[in-house]
Amino acid sequence: MKKNILDYNFPQDLKTMSREELELLPYAIRNFLVENVSRTGGHLASNLGVVELTIALHKVFDSPSDKIIWDVGHQSYVHKILTGRAGQFESLRQFNGLSGFPKKKESPHDAYDTGHSSTSISAAAGMASAREIRNEHYEVVAVIGDGSLTGGMAYEALNNIGASKSKVIVILNDNGMSISKNIGGISTHLGNLRTSKGYLSAKKFIKNTVGSIGSIGNAIAGGLAGFKNDIKYSILEKGGVLFEELGFTYFGPVDGHNIADLINVMNRAKSLDEPVLIHVITKKGKGYKNAEKDPGKFHGIGPFNPETGALLKNTTGISYSEIMGNHLVELAGEDENIVAITAAMGDATGLGPFKKEFPHRFFDVGIAEQHAVTFAAGLAKCGIKPVCAIYSSFLQRAYDQIMEDVCMQELPVVFAIDRAGIVGADGETHHGIYDLSYLMTMPEMTVLTPHDCIGLEKAIDYALSLGKPAAIRYPRGEAVDSALCIDDKKFMSTHKPSVTNVRITLGNDVDVWACGKMFDTGSELVEILNNKGISAGLVDVEVVKPIDISPFNKDCKLIVTLEDNDVYSGFGMHLGSIIKNENIRILNFGWPDKFIEQGTYDELAYKYGLMPQQIAERICEYIEGKA
Amino acid sequence: MKKNILDYNFPQDLKTMSREELELLPYAIRNFLVENVSRTGGHLASNLGVVELTIALHKVFDSPSDKIIWDVGHQSYVHKILTGRAGQFESLRQFNGLSGFPKKKESPHDAYDTGHSSTSISAAAGMASAREIRNEHYEVVAVIGDGSLTGGMAYEALNNIGASKSKVIVILNDNGMSISKNIGGISTHLGNLRTSKGYLSAKKFIKNTVGSIGSIGNAIAGGLAGFKNDIKYSILEKGGVLFEELGFTYFGPVDGHNIADLINVMNRAKSLDEPVLIHVITKKGKGYKNAEKDPGKFHGIGPFNPETGALLKNTTGISYSEIMGNHLVELAGEDENIVAITAAMGDATGLGPFKKEFPHRFFDVGIAEQHAVTFAAGLAKCGIKPVCAIYSSFLQRAYDQIMEDVCMQELPVVFAIDRAGIVGADGETHHGIYDLSYLMTMPEMTVLTPHDCIGLEKAIDYALSLGKPAAIRYPRGEAVDSALCIDDKKFMSTHKPSVTNVRITLGNDVDVWACGKMFDTGSELVEILNNKGISAGLVDVEVVKPIDISPFNKDCKLIVTLEDNDVYSGFGMHLGSIIKNENIRILNFGWPDKFIEQGTYDELAYKYGLMPQQIAERICEYIEGKA
Repeated sequence: MKKNILDYNFPQDLKTMSREELELLPYAIRNFLVENVSRTGGHLASNLGVVELTIALHKVFDSPSDKIIWDVGHQSYVHKILTGRAGQFESLRQFNGLSGFPKKKESPHDAYDTGHSSTSISAAAGMASAREIRNEHYEVVAVIGDGSLTGGMAYEALNNIGASKSKVIVILNDNGMSISKNIGGISTHLGNLRTSKGYLSAKKFIKNTVGSIGSIGNAIAGGLAGFKNDIKYSILEKGGVLFEELGFTYFGPVDGHNIADLINVMNRAKSLDEPVLIHVITKKGKGYKNAEKDPGKFHGIGPFNPETGALLKNTTGISYSEIMGNHLVELAGEDENIVAITAAMGDATGLGPFKKEFPHRFFDVGIAEQHAVTFAAGLAKCGIKPVCAIYSSFLQRAYDQIMEDVCMQELPVVFAIDRAGIVGADGETHHGIYDLSYLMTMPEMTVLTPHDCIGLEKAIDYALSLGKPAAIRYPRGEAVDSALCIDDKKFMSTHKPSVTNVRITLGNDVDVWACGKMFDTGSELVEILNNKGISAGLVDVEVVKPIDISPFNKDCKLIVTLEDNDVYSGFGMHLGSIIKNENIRILNFGWPDKFIEQGTYDELAYKYGLMPQQIAERICEYIEGKA
Repeated sequence: MKKNILDYNFPQDLKTMSREELELLPYAIRNFLVENVSRTGGHLASNLGVVELTIALHKVFDSPSDKIIWDVGHQSYVHKILTGRAGQFESLRQFNGLSGFPKKKESPHDAYDTGHSSTSISAAAGMASAREIRNEHYEVVAVIGDGSLTGGMAYEALNNIGASKSKVIVILNDNGMSISKNIGGISTHLGNLRTSKGYLSAKKFIKNTVGSIGSIGNAIAGGLAGFKNDIKYSILEKGGVLFEELGFTYFGPVDGHNIADLINVMNRAKSLDEPVLIHVITKKGKGYKNAEKDPGKFHGIGPFNPETGALLKNTTGISYSEIMGNHLVELAGEDENIVAITAAMGDATGLGPFKKEFPHRFFDVGIAEQHAVTFAAGLAKCGIKPVCAIYSSFLQRAYDQIMEDVCMQELPVVFAIDRAGIVGADGETHHGIYDLSYLMTMPEMTVLTPHDCIGLEKAIDYALSLGKPAAIRYPRGEAVDSALCIDDKKFMSTHKPSVTNVRITLGNDVDVWACGKMFDTGSELVEILNNKGISAGLVDVEVVKPIDISPFNKDCKLIVTLEDNDVYSGFGMHLGSIIKNENIRILNFGWPDKFIEQGTYDELAYKYGLMPQQIAERICEYIEGKA
């Protein structure tokens, strides 16, 4: 046993490791994970849960020729350690550092880039078909969590593989429940039975006769029933039957912390030429008691004290998510028709208090954004006022439903779009920089971009009062306090009762229209410009669709727009197409037409020229170029 | 029995009708359908299949207080007849006429507007929850076809209803297979057993014991196995088990052409307070022998001779779909890595010959656009060159997968986007007028808009040569012949070997940039303007992203853009944001920011001011306004 994870040459060393050393390796990996993630922050609990699973995968399969696909991908840290990237963990999730998700650009062992849920089985199906067409020989393994199975596209994929009979190994990493005596006994017995050669041959014989698959499935279901506490379990309870019925050979449940068992079942799966699903039971946070106790806290966490588990940085402020959730509780107390819907983002979108206060008006549909939106449309059709709280990036899944179900029927569904704009360490798959682009093209939709506490509350009030589709986008993190904001900067205007775009200051040379979060950048920019002798005004843009151009200043010849969105199709471009005055030019600032990597907002803003000073310089250049 | 369907006062008359008259009604309705649809065109086969089902629904349920939701919606003609709209069938699917889909604006009996597949169960879930929250009392019924069940969101919905135990009645209209002795015997017996009160009480007792649900399901599965010929059946074979496992009480299979049986089973479903799925077997085209023989032809059909079934209008031209499909066969003959993928649109996208020629490289994944795209990404990741042929409007379902799986990984998936732009009679749910908007915001994507035969072929060649994501959008219907086009209009330029935007004619006053299909409008426009003494030039825009502005004419002070897309976020607006010359103004023409109704292209273009003469007038006004 080497002293340090960094001393190994993975994955090669794994292949020749003694059984004894293999059994000790998880301890070393867990220490390494806790030590590193306590410094950088990251997804800890899910990674602690897949240590043995990942070791077994790399022992049985030959990456990168065999393809291992990590659904969602935030549980790929151990995989990164075992594929030669332990040395880069100091930079985990940081600007220019190691990604918290699989990235082909980082390593050939990252067979497929993920970030959004439920894609792994479809990708695996594609890789398996490619193998068949090209007559190549490699294994394709998709590792998918229980939560991701609530996403409809996972079913589309299972159904297609079941029909095609392509050899794909799906590993169901079931970390929603801990190993317990309830699923010991009969389930372990059945698991053994199913994974033994004897069972596999017998199964074909008994497949269509009375009392076989269904009863086994039901027995498993009975065993797991005690753990039912969420939508996803309604699928899992039926796992065995359901997967067999969809055309998979089902192995499991298997103890996901027993390397020998895992290796055994994976080798059996490998030996078959058909779709196999291995149901593995793992424990989130395994081996680190702080995380075992509170896996939710350690799902995605900032830097913390590894001894106590306490966060190093205490946030004193209130997040936009909390403001939304708390305000919705107030409103729902007064209006019984208000309900909240989310897609496995209940606490994260601030809906915890709502769930507690109004359990019958709170709907967490699982990772099923499409259903969430059409379900909301159905509710709205019958007199309910649904508020759908979903992250900007994940709401992309429901583009069609927002357009066809909500907007086309002009139904009063309110979208509370959390994590809009740059989200930081999660990087390109999670930045919410396209919502303005896709929402502004939707007829009948109102799109609001508040930038502070009061603005967000007013936007919610206003959206709910409209009686038609509305979306409110707001950033990740701590909210700007309106009162402070207004006092400190001594703006002309106080906050408005209804939501419109508001003229804050007037200027003669440049008029800055700042959307949502960019209001702060706009304020600084205006100050910088004024200090340079350029007379600049500021407009607080909180309604981007239908565009409210009432603060328009026809005497100012240069408009500058700022938005925390793709600049190629956002607010600025729409404003540009509306301002018909021939003497007025417009400069749009936002994120360029490329995928934006991980990093803090400031790091990324600096890289892409969106810091106030940089924008000021470009404006000066433009003005000088014209002079 | 009244002589004419028009003489009834539906739905009231249905409630008091004698048993004898009820049994005769289907004949009258079928005659009415064939007579009317033979004149107007429309979805005939699916409607002939649901005559008895729809009669039973309106007999058992009280619409509009009870809510009947038609998944996809093109099978709602009988429902329209039975809810007082028979008199409007002369205008079916025509401009200002009766819609071919449910529309709340048309009747309160249309409980929920549909058009895209697999939404009905989610909407029903929402309506059922609204009923519970508001403590109201009505039934919610979703009627969904076997094909729609391949869409993942239908599973998301079943899973959620199964967990919530809300009372929703799902009617599975299984028209994929005909009634046959194979599913008679044991299945009918089991069906009777399951729908009898005796079975329902017994079931609760035996639910978790050995040999109950699974075995019944397997018996049904065994019975249906002989009909397996498509992806959807891999679900249906397992229907009974699968639905029971997801939390539904399963009734069926029921003969969908036996009104008494249907009424019986629906009444039983109504009497229960839990989710119920009724599996109804219907025959597409039932009762009209031409349609029974060839239900595919009569799925969506133009006007035809009701005696012979022959189409009245013979199209001599070749469609864009056929050009795409045929050209792909040529290319695939030379390159073994080319594969074709579609989502239940194989023949309609011209892939029939490809399927025949290369069955192992053809993938119809069912109505599962999300899976189709990520499956393509998986294939592309392993050296395959997938071409995904999907209608513009339906591709919206895969917005997230195009962005996250294809573009973010820069994978060489080619999207052959059929039915882009206005599609005509199917109306707002089917027009493909947002694809430029959503594709142009995606980094790494190339977007091509060919307008004629050769252009489409070259675009496919070019897209496949890129080695990165590419989309080709082309309209529904007959293709413009390039050679004719070039000869007739005596353009300066012949067709180019690679795909760029091409200067066709030069003008001093107005420069018309016409995308794709709008090339013809552009040609006419230029002629009209020139005749008015306004010197106009023309650019053939076939690459909208990355925008190729090489034909830019800096001496022309007014650019006019034309596109068969939402004007609010399409090509024109992007071009406008790029042309930085202060002296040049730009006028964008396309569809306004509203949902566009059904009608022919010309009818709609006239209404929205997009006919060449109308555009010319607006340009003249603009020029005069400036002068």
